[in-house]
Amino acid sequence: MPNVKHQKWWGWGEENVFFTYENKPAFAPIVKRAVGIDLRPRERDTVDFGTAQVPASRITDAQLAALQGISGAENTLTDDHDRVIHWAGKSVTDIIKTLQNRFDRVPDVVVYPGSEDEVQALVDAAVELDLVLIPFGGGSSISRSLQARPEETRTVVSVDLGRLNQVLEIDETSGLARIQAGVLGPDMEEQLNARGWTLGHFPDSFNHSTLGGWAATRSSGMQSDKYGDIAEIIRGMNVVRPGGIVRLRPLPSTSTGPSLREMFIGSEGRLGIITEVWVQIHRQTEAREVIAYMFPTWQQGLTAMRHIHESEVHTTFARISDARETEFSLATQKAPTSLKKTVSAKGQDALWALMRKRGWDTDAMCIAYVCFEGTKQDVLRKKRRVSGIVHKQGALILGSGPGALYDQKKFDTPYLRDFLLEQGVIGDVSETAAPWAKLTTVHKNVYDAAQSAFDELGKTGWIMSHMSHSYHSGACLYFTFAFEYSDDVDHEYALVKTRIQQAFIDSGGTLSHHHGVGAEHSPWMEQDVSEGGVQLLRGLFQIADPGENFNPGKVIDSPDTLHKALRNGEAG
Amino acid sequence: MPNVKHQKWWGWGEENVFFTYENKPAFAPIVKRAVGIDLRPRERDTVDFGTAQVPASRITDAQLAALQGISGAENTLTDDHDRVIHWAGKSVTDIIKTLQNRFDRVPDVVVYPGSEDEVQALVDAAVELDLVLIPFGGGSSISRSLQARPEETRTVVSVDLGRLNQVLEIDETSGLARIQAGVLGPDMEEQLNARGWTLGHFPDSFNHSTLGGWAATRSSGMQSDKYGDIAEIIRGMNVVRPGGIVRLRPLPSTSTGPSLREMFIGSEGRLGIITEVWVQIHRQTEAREVIAYMFPTWQQGLTAMRHIHESEVHTTFARISDARETEFSLATQKAPTSLKKTVSAKGQDALWALMRKRGWDTDAMCIAYVCFEGTKQDVLRKKRRVSGIVHKQGALILGSGPGALYDQKKFDTPYLRDFLLEQGVIGDVSETAAPWAKLTTVHKNVYDAAQSAFDELGKTGWIMSHMSHSYHSGACLYFTFAFEYSDDVDHEYALVKTRIQQAFIDSGGTLSHHHGVGAEHSPWMEQDVSEGGVQLLRGLFQIADPGENFNPGKVIDSPDTLHKALRNGEAG
Repeated sequence: MPNVKHQKWWGWGEENVFFTYENKPAFAPIVKRAVGIDLRPRERDTVDFGTAQVPASRITDAQLAALQGISGAENTLTDDHDRVIHWAGKSVTDIIKTLQNRFDRVPDVVVYPGSEDEVQALVDAAVELDLVLIPFGGGSSISRSLQARPEETRTVVSVDLGRLNQVLEIDETSGLARIQAGVLGPDMEEQLNARGWTLGHFPDSFNHSTLGGWAATRSSGMQSDKYGDIAEIIRGMNVVRPGGIVRLRPLPSTSTGPSLREMFIGSEGRLGIITEVWVQIHRQTEAREVIAYMFPTWQQGLTAMRHIHESEVHTTFARISDARETEFSLATQKAPTSLKKTVSAKGQDALWALMRKRGWDTDAMCIAYVCFEGTKQDVLRKKRRVSGIVHKQGALILGSGPGALYDQKKFDTPYLRDFLLEQGVIGDVSETAAPWAKLTTVHKNVYDAAQSAFDELGKTGWIMSHMSHSYHSGACLYFTFAFEYSDDVDHEYALVKTRIQQAFIDSGGTLSHHHGVGAEHSPWMEQDVSEGGVQLLRGLFQIADPGENFNPGKVIDSPDTLHKALRNGEAG
Repeated sequence: MPNVKHQKWWGWGEENVFFTYENKPAFAPIVKRAVGIDLRPRERDTVDFGTAQVPASRITDAQLAALQGISGAENTLTDDHDRVIHWAGKSVTDIIKTLQNRFDRVPDVVVYPGSEDEVQALVDAAVELDLVLIPFGGGSSISRSLQARPEETRTVVSVDLGRLNQVLEIDETSGLARIQAGVLGPDMEEQLNARGWTLGHFPDSFNHSTLGGWAATRSSGMQSDKYGDIAEIIRGMNVVRPGGIVRLRPLPSTSTGPSLREMFIGSEGRLGIITEVWVQIHRQTEAREVIAYMFPTWQQGLTAMRHIHESEVHTTFARISDARETEFSLATQKAPTSLKKTVSAKGQDALWALMRKRGWDTDAMCIAYVCFEGTKQDVLRKKRRVSGIVHKQGALILGSGPGALYDQKKFDTPYLRDFLLEQGVIGDVSETAAPWAKLTTVHKNVYDAAQSAFDELGKTGWIMSHMSHSYHSGACLYFTFAFEYSDDVDHEYALVKTRIQQAFIDSGGTLSHHHGVGAEHSPWMEQDVSEGGVQLLRGLFQIADPGENFNPGKVIDSPDTLHKALRNGEAG
């Protein structure tokens, strides 16, 4: 068995890591109010794989022999467990389908290549034997980028890049590293940190996603304000294509026609398999601090975030939760378990009293977190400047306590989602980016769109949001929504999701800021990049992959009909 | 006649603007030493268009009628003067060929569309009537992006976008503007400045190039450290393609598959015609200062430039001339014409004396310019921090006097080139970008490569360089070379140029940082983006333009054989 880490087959993340609400007194009440259910204690510690009813592999002996000849029998697996781990990503619908034994099209074989040469041989074999190849990193996709098309009749090969997990080379003068695409976030940071460097790229999925996956889906980390989106971080790459490798050397900038680098970034396996990436790396900073601020209203908070970006203070991140998310976030705080924490909780009560005295509507207030890095002097200067900006928008400075807490919990949200799923509640996310001037409209329209879907379904639903990832001209809005699902979950989910997606587009936002397109968001591509844009992409994929051997049906021309039908108003 | 500004038909820039050396006492001696000639006074004030022998237009009456039907007879011109203005860009070989009446393939007609609808009609007509369309902005290309293929038998149409020159819309909250692609730099800045904004994009060609041209060639302005390359500045665009417009809405960031935005940027007319662009704009800053520094050596200067970038001081630009360029730059200083200037000149002599006293080799010293913008307080803080960095590398601070002078003269260099041409000297430029760790090697290897070509030609040649455009992982190196040319100028130029280009690639640099590919740099595309990369681009162009109607032969598959032959060592 190849020594490659995987998430639990039936949910997010690691076995034996769970969300728990017993120590969070405000959690059950807010869930009751939000989605109308009474929480039960968690029952599902794990799921016995014996309950899974997995469609048999359809691989032929000749195909299997050919693949074994490339990476060895020990790295070419057809057992049900490995195939199920690779059948999908971790979107809420992926997990529901897995738990309900509704596997659309499970790959027939999983291959773990151990070198770029083996990847080349696999890619060439795919063309020669007419196989379908789907590259697999950490399996954290929530855009259905990893599923074969349900109707796929050819043999489907999941290519797990997990053995290609080394930092190969560091150019200390240029701040560049050459890294294999299959490395998981923590393993990569460990190798870089050992030499005093960091990539600075921390998407929510960090613990369970890979560099190659970030590249293939246009990922963005929570610290992108300082370190850039993955598209900026990547300076060169190797992409294995039929007949040979496209090698893009590491360059700070170049003027060589249409950008191939930006063509492979976001290509989700449709143009070949990314094996190596040249990335910008940074020296670990002397000082780092996350400060929390409370704003009286969402509008004032948004304005402050924009002013912080305009001021050129150069923060590492700046994010603000809307009133609903602020309330939810406070409700997940643990009950005090020590004298110190009790004092802190009392301090919070005193703070609330102060805010009410100032005339704040405590239902409207919004919490923001801003991260500062640099020399100690830099951090001090930046903090002072941000203090001035947030004061003008009426904010209270909550200090570094809540900030540190946020920093610790930042990767834990998906476990909460899986907990809710057991309780019969779908909780999922959808995110966009839009110009600053449109953020308020996007926010309002998405709330209205979600509510219209909840109303139509007769559900008590919940939606909340935060703004993060600032750019010169705009920012990302990230929404979380939840409702109790029924046997008709596919339709219920699709209705809410498509309403939200359509509101993004109609309000001037994009279909996704950093989750990628996959099959999930593909129905909005024409509206996002225009019909002519989709035609050009279609042409590109056709000439790059005439046999449709490389993850067909992603980005454009996906087979999903439910989302499309709902988008077009053809289904209620 | 359409009211569109053009450069002089026989050279760079405006009629009646010239370089003059009479008031620069050190200039003639350095030219003598550099390329071995004695300067004569300038004789060429203008060139009578009557001397031009222009191949006749081959357009048919039916074609002309069709085009006149689109943009009107008054905007559809077939006269020789207009056709010659549009036959090429302004590379030194373009100008030589023009002056020597060696027109390869002059466009048969020039059309000035007045709207996006007219551009659409032209694009559709190109496919229907099998015409060749070449978009034309300010005509400042030095990469041969504007010439039709010499062997082109079909009717060639130059589409001059100069009538599409308006800032259409400003989003003040998001810092975004929607601007027509045909606007020249100064006209655009005037419209933006009137409302308190600037694009901040100032390429050397600024006065004679357009927004659409910058987009189509992956331009970078001298202030890119702060404002970004054009690829970052552009957030959305309209591209007219056969059958319809690809519309990319303005977005701060997006995750929608392979980037169409980055596919059109750099496409040099091969994927359609860019008509509108959404760009990031900035409020004009409160304070701006350019400070000059003198470094004892190139290596110390380069190190300081890198440290400035690493320090996150966020300068607007930071550039350093090597010893040769420093010497040349000082030699173009005017003789003092007032008491104040005499004192200043004496001050400079005293400075030289001080440097010698400190043990500096004054032949090795390098001048750097760093630009600071922001609030007055910001500028002060940044200057202090840079002072600390440059001191560690032994620099002397020359202050804001030379900096202001540099700022005034920054767009004038091409006039010097035209002056030298009259003197029988080719002066031209070639630029690259490479990781920080490779800059010294690139610099040395390019010097050696140029010298090897000069030796082979038996010429006294000159080369000099500066570093500019800093990025996290590297920077641009910009070379200027000169030698006395003979009747065999095509071969002489190609030999020097190809040696320099090859040294870029062999040393880890790119074929161009911001001049584009055109036909001039196309022979190095395989070496730069690899053969597989070129194959993918070829496929893209084929599906986007199966009839080869849109500026064929640019970026890849150019007809030029001399550069290719020399690159391959097939010609001496």
